[in-house]
Amino acid sequence: MISPSANQDRYPYQNQPTWSKSEKAIARTAFDAALGRELHEVIQEAKRMANQIRQSSDLWDLEHCLTQHRKGIDRKYDYRYSQLTDVLGRLLYENRLSEEDLRGLREDKMESIRSFAKFLKESAA
Amino acid sequence: MISPSANQDRYPYQNQPTWSKSEKAIARTAFDAALGRELHEVIQEAKRMANQIRQSSDLWDLEHCLTQHRKGIDRKYDYRYSQLTDVLGRLLYENRLSEEDLRGLREDKMESIRSFAKFLKESAA
Repeated sequence: MISPSANQDRYPYQNQPTWSKSEKAIARTAFDAALGRELHEVIQEAKRMANQIRQSSDLWDLEHCLTQHRKGIDRKYDYRYSQLTDVLGRLLYENRLSEEDLRGLREDKMESIRSFAKFLKESAA
Repeated sequence: MISPSANQDRYPYQNQPTWSKSEKAIARTAFDAALGRELHEVIQEAKRMANQIRQSSDLWDLEHCLTQHRKGIDRKYDYRYSQLTDVLGRLLYENRLSEEDLRGLREDKMESIRSFAKFLKESAA
């Protein structure tokens, strides 16, 4: 087993961008707005599905759909600064955020965010 | 490890009641009717809950409720003849069946069914 170098011990996140107070506020607002919109969509979908339940299979389809959404949302909305450029990149890729929502972030962060969105787009193509 | 006796090998279910063709038909009808009524109740509850969703916690409450119902129904509605007097006893205890629904079963089965219903009632008291 290779021991981590003293340098790694001291600066485990040295390659992570730092977030200024104003950037944290912008990111938090954009993140919460995207989460709110996605939850609103799931709520509308659940109401529509419940309204159309005719038999037990429809009931368990609703349960399965809610479980999938809950797990997907839990995975996607990870507000750790170490993950945040990827998280915002994914939301940009999914059109849950626009670049306008992120205005005020430093250009190096915007580049990371756009780059991850582009990577996801190309992976899906 | 104790080897099973030859007798146990030959008659593993010798203490299980046998079900005549007409008894099987009565049990199946009663079982299906109780299951249908319980599913109908859950469908109505899901529609009511979905209709009242205002925030994400209501959404996950609905998911949790559906999961609990699905697991409970899977456990409860076990149509194996080896389990059937206990299953019908539970449905009787929960007022999901009446003795009238079981009319035509042999008296030894009705005694087992009533006895299990009574046991559940006393356990819950």
